[in-house]
Amino acid sequence: VLPVAVDAMGGDRAPGEIVAGARQAADELGVPVVLVGNPELIGDPLGLDVIAAGEVIAMDEDPATGVRRKKDSSLVRAAEAVRDGTASAMVSAGNTGATMASALLRMGRLSGVQRPAIATPIPVPGSTPTVLLDAGANAECTAQYLVQFAQMGSVFAATRYGIDKPRVGLLSIGEEDTKGTPLVKETHALLRGGAGAGVNFVGNVEGRDIMSTDVDVVVTDGFTGNVVLKTLEGGLRALVSAVAGAVGGVEGAIDALLPLAAEFDPDNTGGAMLLGVEGVCIISHGSSSARAVVNAVRVARDMVDGDVVDGLRSAVRPESAN
Amino acid sequence: VLPVAVDAMGGDRAPGEIVAGARQAADELGVPVVLVGNPELIGDPLGLDVIAAGEVIAMDEDPATGVRRKKDSSLVRAAEAVRDGTASAMVSAGNTGATMASALLRMGRLSGVQRPAIATPIPVPGSTPTVLLDAGANAECTAQYLVQFAQMGSVFAATRYGIDKPRVGLLSIGEEDTKGTPLVKETHALLRGGAGAGVNFVGNVEGRDIMSTDVDVVVTDGFTGNVVLKTLEGGLRALVSAVAGAVGGVEGAIDALLPLAAEFDPDNTGGAMLLGVEGVCIISHGSSSARAVVNAVRVARDMVDGDVVDGLRSAVRPESAN
Repeated sequence: VLPVAVDAMGGDRAPGEIVAGARQAADELGVPVVLVGNPELIGDPLGLDVIAAGEVIAMDEDPATGVRRKKDSSLVRAAEAVRDGTASAMVSAGNTGATMASALLRMGRLSGVQRPAIATPIPVPGSTPTVLLDAGANAECTAQYLVQFAQMGSVFAATRYGIDKPRVGLLSIGEEDTKGTPLVKETHALLRGGAGAGVNFVGNVEGRDIMSTDVDVVVTDGFTGNVVLKTLEGGLRALVSAVAGAVGGVEGAIDALLPLAAEFDPDNTGGAMLLGVEGVCIISHGSSSARAVVNAVRVARDMVDGDVVDGLRSAVRPESAN
Repeated sequence: VLPVAVDAMGGDRAPGEIVAGARQAADELGVPVVLVGNPELIGDPLGLDVIAAGEVIAMDEDPATGVRRKKDSSLVRAAEAVRDGTASAMVSAGNTGATMASALLRMGRLSGVQRPAIATPIPVPGSTPTVLLDAGANAECTAQYLVQFAQMGSVFAATRYGIDKPRVGLLSIGEEDTKGTPLVKETHALLRGGAGAGVNFVGNVEGRDIMSTDVDVVVTDGFTGNVVLKTLEGGLRALVSAVAGAVGGVEGAIDALLPLAAEFDPDNTGGAMLLGVEGVCIISHGSSSARAVVNAVRVARDMVDGDVVDGLRSAVRPESAN
């Protein structure tokens, strides 16, 4: 079994938490893991193999410039390991733009895919998460991109959460076909007209449906998707801290809330996945803890075992399937 | 003092809750209130005056068609009362699009304003709300519209919350000037370049900043704004019901949460305001209770007393101010 390549240099808490998480993943999941990074900065690799990479692309560095100039960076080397067949997947909590660029440039785009997209799971209390895409890879999109996002999101939701015929909604500002921007209207018409082969399209959905059980996949452009993701992140954080303050003096209340807090903790959602490249690339959030790395490695392993890349390839080129 | 015109026919709970709320507003606030609607459907007006209007624009009716065909509708008559100087402001919990269209067509656009926008307060725990605009009046916007939204949002935040030099942020997907769509980049450049006279522009903000104390006004196009609003609505509702479920068995926990729940209750936020028309038009949410109507009337009264329309007029035409 090929190892999962973990970018030891990526993330606010790298390398310490990342290395610790990689070690835990190997122990708990029985998944081989290889670290990618500067051996001197990594220090003790805790018994894991290391793919040496001398450079680091910083969290706030310009992604395109970073990937172009730092050919010996941990991100570029991790993507090359997947391309060269020495790793089954890559995981990084580093610079998201640079992670995407590394994966796209080194692994290559899946044949037929116009633009890769970031699929992010949004927790839904008591249910499987809703997959939101694009969560920020493409600020500007065409209707054709969005149709492919619907196809790729379906495959991802089915593979990751075992959902049969995931219900796919198009994010708009009203359920009526006539509402929204020209992009939304055009995409709606294409999906209704059957352009998205294999997509169980349920029509337009609104922001309030994202965290409901009414839809499994929500498709939108990367600008709106990123705004939605960060709005929820900020809103839920504000509410959680207000709730904690309100019930802080009530005995037992915080204990009762802990399972719920775990459900919403981004460390537990397993990270986002870049869909549309020739390999599995899991993007973990910047403040990832060791626990987040374990969950990201688990998702990487599951996506490799579920042949999600083959599924995505077939989904966007249905004529070449089977 | 002129009365506030309350659309007795608008809202999921009209006319009962609306009439009750109008009566309470008159009693509690000492503000004269006049109902607008069909006297037979209103039944007992609880001692309030009624402006008779024979027709009703339904919640799900096409706004433009409704306003064009139903010249004797409660929404059109309410807007005419403001135009004709028989009411100081209008309040409706009815069809939002039809409310906007009625106000725009009957009161008229403020001189110099390219497009009216809906300004919606988003609760921020322990602080004044953040004013989000446009929350859905214009799915498509130009940079010039957004610059005016920044100017109008500033005046509204200052008038409604007494904020001196409100901090205005432009919603994007990164704080860097170079991130976002062409619309965001162009708007950023205009605001940085001083096009938004009177605006305390703090740069780009992200979704996670909306419910923080870092910004007072967040400007975006009506598609993104509406998605944000409904995403927060759905997300907070999902989290609140999950919290209630989690702590339901813990004695005293729900009591501790009640003040917080009140803070997030849309009935207590006082409604949104349509900025850019020749009069005060308050849009209350569709499920408004009597309490929501009281709060909407209070905001209407405050906006009239604060001469917000004059402030808006000056803001978008700074050369003609004072």
